[in-house]
Amino acid sequence: MTRIADRPSDKTVAVLTLVDLATGAKREILRAGWIDQLRRIPGSEAWSALIDRGEGVQLYRVEPDGRVAPIIIHPATVRFGEVDGWLLPGFAHSPLGIGVKAYSWSPDGLWLFYILLDAIRPERGVQHDEEIAEQRGMRRPRGQATASLYVRAADGSIQLVAKRPRSDLRSIFSKGDVNWSATGFEYVLMDAEEGGRQRKRTMAWSFAEKRSREIGSTVQVASWMLPGPRGGRLTAEGVGGSREIVETDQNGKRYSYGHFPFSIGHGAGFGGFRTADGRRAIVNARTIEDPRYGIAVIEAKGLRTIWGKASLIQCDFTPTLRNGACIAEGQSRPPSIVTIDVDAGKVEQVASVSDQHDEIAPLEVTPRTWTNRYGHKATGYVIWPRHYVTGRRYPAIVITHGYDADQRFAVQENQWEYPAQVLAERGYVVLLINIPSSRFNKDLHDADRAWATERGLMPPEEMRKLLWLTGVASFETAIQELAAAGVIDRERVGIAGYSRGSQLVNVAMTQSKIFRAASSGDGAYLEPVYEPDMPESYRAVFGGSPFDPKFLPNYLALSPSLRTGEACGAILQQVAAPHAGAIDFYRALRAAGVPTQLSLFPGEDDSSDETHIFHIPSNRMAAMQENLAWFDYWLKGERDPLSPSASRYAEWDRMRDAIPARCRADERTGA
Amino acid sequence: MTRIADRPSDKTVAVLTLVDLATGAKREILRAGWIDQLRRIPGSEAWSALIDRGEGVQLYRVEPDGRVAPIIIHPATVRFGEVDGWLLPGFAHSPLGIGVKAYSWSPDGLWLFYILLDAIRPERGVQHDEEIAEQRGMRRPRGQATASLYVRAADGSIQLVAKRPRSDLRSIFSKGDVNWSATGFEYVLMDAEEGGRQRKRTMAWSFAEKRSREIGSTVQVASWMLPGPRGGRLTAEGVGGSREIVETDQNGKRYSYGHFPFSIGHGAGFGGFRTADGRRAIVNARTIEDPRYGIAVIEAKGLRTIWGKASLIQCDFTPTLRNGACIAEGQSRPPSIVTIDVDAGKVEQVASVSDQHDEIAPLEVTPRTWTNRYGHKATGYVIWPRHYVTGRRYPAIVITHGYDADQRFAVQENQWEYPAQVLAERGYVVLLINIPSSRFNKDLHDADRAWATERGLMPPEEMRKLLWLTGVASFETAIQELAAAGVIDRERVGIAGYSRGSQLVNVAMTQSKIFRAASSGDGAYLEPVYEPDMPESYRAVFGGSPFDPKFLPNYLALSPSLRTGEACGAILQQVAAPHAGAIDFYRALRAAGVPTQLSLFPGEDDSSDETHIFHIPSNRMAAMQENLAWFDYWLKGERDPLSPSASRYAEWDRMRDAIPARCRADERTGA
Repeated sequence: MTRIADRPSDKTVAVLTLVDLATGAKREILRAGWIDQLRRIPGSEAWSALIDRGEGVQLYRVEPDGRVAPIIIHPATVRFGEVDGWLLPGFAHSPLGIGVKAYSWSPDGLWLFYILLDAIRPERGVQHDEEIAEQRGMRRPRGQATASLYVRAADGSIQLVAKRPRSDLRSIFSKGDVNWSATGFEYVLMDAEEGGRQRKRTMAWSFAEKRSREIGSTVQVASWMLPGPRGGRLTAEGVGGSREIVETDQNGKRYSYGHFPFSIGHGAGFGGFRTADGRRAIVNARTIEDPRYGIAVIEAKGLRTIWGKASLIQCDFTPTLRNGACIAEGQSRPPSIVTIDVDAGKVEQVASVSDQHDEIAPLEVTPRTWTNRYGHKATGYVIWPRHYVTGRRYPAIVITHGYDADQRFAVQENQWEYPAQVLAERGYVVLLINIPSSRFNKDLHDADRAWATERGLMPPEEMRKLLWLTGVASFETAIQELAAAGVIDRERVGIAGYSRGSQLVNVAMTQSKIFRAASSGDGAYLEPVYEPDMPESYRAVFGGSPFDPKFLPNYLALSPSLRTGEACGAILQQVAAPHAGAIDFYRALRAAGVPTQLSLFPGEDDSSDETHIFHIPSNRMAAMQENLAWFDYWLKGERDPLSPSASRYAEWDRMRDAIPARCRADERTGA
Repeated sequence: MTRIADRPSDKTVAVLTLVDLATGAKREILRAGWIDQLRRIPGSEAWSALIDRGEGVQLYRVEPDGRVAPIIIHPATVRFGEVDGWLLPGFAHSPLGIGVKAYSWSPDGLWLFYILLDAIRPERGVQHDEEIAEQRGMRRPRGQATASLYVRAADGSIQLVAKRPRSDLRSIFSKGDVNWSATGFEYVLMDAEEGGRQRKRTMAWSFAEKRSREIGSTVQVASWMLPGPRGGRLTAEGVGGSREIVETDQNGKRYSYGHFPFSIGHGAGFGGFRTADGRRAIVNARTIEDPRYGIAVIEAKGLRTIWGKASLIQCDFTPTLRNGACIAEGQSRPPSIVTIDVDAGKVEQVASVSDQHDEIAPLEVTPRTWTNRYGHKATGYVIWPRHYVTGRRYPAIVITHGYDADQRFAVQENQWEYPAQVLAERGYVVLLINIPSSRFNKDLHDADRAWATERGLMPPEEMRKLLWLTGVASFETAIQELAAAGVIDRERVGIAGYSRGSQLVNVAMTQSKIFRAASSGDGAYLEPVYEPDMPESYRAVFGGSPFDPKFLPNYLALSPSLRTGEACGAILQQVAAPHAGAIDFYRALRAAGVPTQLSLFPGEDDSSDETHIFHIPSNRMAAMQENLAWFDYWLKGERDPLSPSASRYAEWDRMRDAIPARCRADERTGA
């Protein structure tokens, strides 16, 4: 299944393609607004999937010849996405009406577990206290719904397993995670408790009794669980250059398979597989340096790996785990379909995924690591301009989204609207840089934990350094090394990043003088305006409220909008909604005379917004073109009369001419 | 025309009643969702009005027998109110679709000037900079529209006078203000200029030429202009206990009618009238102490007044200004219709407006003034409990909305959801108190001006004192005097106020220990969260941003949410939308252990909100009942099992029992 931009409808559409692994022949069998949870129906040649064919997301059966027949159709009254009445926010998809949320087939294909959602129209009445307070930072009003869990027998009879409130996030988020057995299945519910906590209840449904009882909570029910050959759970432990792969059984007994230069169990790859007889388990693996994905085969006798030319992801295997198929892709390698011979450890290419991309001669990409002045190591890649000429100094652009730079091809989580390859074609040296990973360093690990658990275990100045400034320092180190090597022109360096990356961009532009231009994508965490909406998170970072004189200095030391007097480079912010934090940063930059632009990419209609990762093709295109125009203007002094941004050049000229005296080039020698 | 609550439909409806001034006979002739700009059609027995009869607000002709016929019907595509796509916010009305915005008949009734509105569907595309920034504090997205000015001749032919953008606030806000002459009419346009300023252009339309030209801007065009007998403009000048009534002609020449203990030209009354021959002018007058409304008759020979038993408002007169009719009402006097014999200076009651209210025996109301410890004088009223017993100490409630306590009956701008009369019936001494007026004191006047012009002419500590603390000091003085006189029990005193009044309530509760309970209505100005949305206003009050360490102390000294450690009394906030500032105050009160409740009263549907002054009858009723329950609980320790708030008592008990040690009664002796 691929998701592609359909230009005429300006929608992202899902395309289901059948590939003959023997011949590599491809055949498109289905095209729909949404396809998800595509699974083989046990004991048949057909698949099932959640598909939006115009009446909301429902469960269908898909035959190999592309014929589609309904399995479960339920009125789609519940909305997912950045839309009024949302039940869950959207991740790079347009607003969806959901009828069937999740499902699972029993291994024999006789039983079907599924979850239906029903919107609840709340009574319109006076609201009190927390009901109101939770709307403070909420742009789109949230809806209410129930989730109903059902099981269908082979004879078509249906039992209601449970009806759950919205507060049961496990059921609302479910992808159909159940453990099937001969007598029933196990599943998990979450109960909301006082203080916002959730209590997990593991339940077992009995086919015979037609009811559930609660069972011990040590039972693991999750699609991402990694079963080992010994019946335990596989994990990768440790910090630094290697990991210990360990299997832990239900009694807590540990068995070590040894130390390896990779970890296991990353979501980007695939979950865990285990043969029925337990002789073999397969999990995905990710190398620590030059991060790429492969396959770890674990048997009682030990662990071995299968690697492709770049990364192997989204693998699936036959029940015996003898044969499989994956997507293979890398930084300079467009996705293709490969088959895996597990016994032989062989990877063989079968078909390309995108013929258009295969036509482009790959750019040269070099994996790199850099150690910054704090002693922290960062991984990443240098993408070289086509026809790179040694000795010539090139403009450069750093792109970051935290930790997502690895051996994959144009991954949106890393590049978002920053087309690294196009920038390289246009003569930029592009650096995809991960910030120093907490898996390398104990201090970073502790800072990450303090942030994630929202407990102030570390002083704000340490948090600032370990979560943001060390990232900026890594970018500086990378730039300095390439400038010292005569590769790049340090007066023409830009930076781009979205979400976690936008934090780093905004901090970099208000703490470092090294960047002349920046593009910051849809993120404004660190702005004081959000403190009341996430006080615990901000307490972990800043110590407390910005209105407490004790903690205000911590904001003045980090919040980008409070440091615009330190900024000089031109800053573009691209946002999916009019975020208050982004507006505050924009206004503060304007007040300080720093060139800046705020660009909002709208949703489908008045009742919805573009998603955090854009899903509307024209928005993605417009954002990419704007980034090209922005960097070309500020770093290369180039303007393109055909760019959609051409109408903005006069404003950019005005801002360039009005740059404050403290920022003028002749005063930047200390940069 | 009256607006009444229609309980079955839960709507506020407009009712047009025809009163025979000779007999007092009343006849309801029209009932509609909205009636506005009701005017006699010159040269006919009929009226015209803007009426919503189900196809938006349009211009109709209303016959004395109640027959209604359309004059101008235009598709009502533009929305007014607290609603998605609003063009103007709502003032105590449900969302309205507007087709005809305003109109005016020429004095001979031959020409009709009118303004039509058309929504503009903005192109959905990438937005930039200020287009985005203005959405920061905006709960409901704003719509776009044009205003088209037309004139219709007696023969039915129609000319477009001008088509104006949304930025022409004069046209958008218009009520049809034009000056008619024999050859055409004069009107005013506003052009948006850089920096958000507006430039006024006064235009003259020529019937003959069928076009407009710009004329000198000294020409006054406004319905509230007060024409004097000498052809100039009437104004009231001065500060303190009297005003000089002055007429100024177009050359700036001034003629004084003398000094009087009243001012003229208040909006709550009526505009100015002048006979065609200029021999007589009439304007409304308002006394300075015990503020009430009357009629000032101005002739070449001098000025005389006509007063009723309480206030005379909404007066209208025959063209000769010999006879008129008004609404008469007072603090203890429900509205009635009176006729005015201008020559004789006589006022005669003709009919009641609300028979239901006439049935209630009036409560005793005493006008009072109080001088606080700053030497500032405040006016107001004491409403006595029915069957008041001298020597018994009563619980007391202060109600304030800035300056609106005057001789009118249950005015929503003052009492909003605080039913003063019902509270008095329930045994409270109710004090309606105006804060010290800037018309009494030059320092208050300067502070008001600094606030209104948003220029920091006065140090923040002075602004704080003159705009808020002196109001609180007046309340304290009033309470202390009544407690010293043995009238009230100073341990059982509450305070309520909305909008401007809510600022005073929130400041009082975080600066004074005198109030045990409070109700604060739909206002959170002074909260730091709004600084970025109104930086100039906040600069005038606080000096600058709360994130500037120089100005943070000014916020810590005044912003209620930053002073909850000083609060002890129970604070109820009633809001029309989930305002961030009210939520911040609520959360800070909770964090400080201060009993508090936040109550949100919803709009008609998901796309609209309740208005600042509530317009949905069930919300008004619920808010009043909640206030009764709140004060009865916290001041009198009473609970009513039938109150809609009965389900909240357990939570109130919990908060009462958890009150911080610093607030316990035995520690409050210094209060």
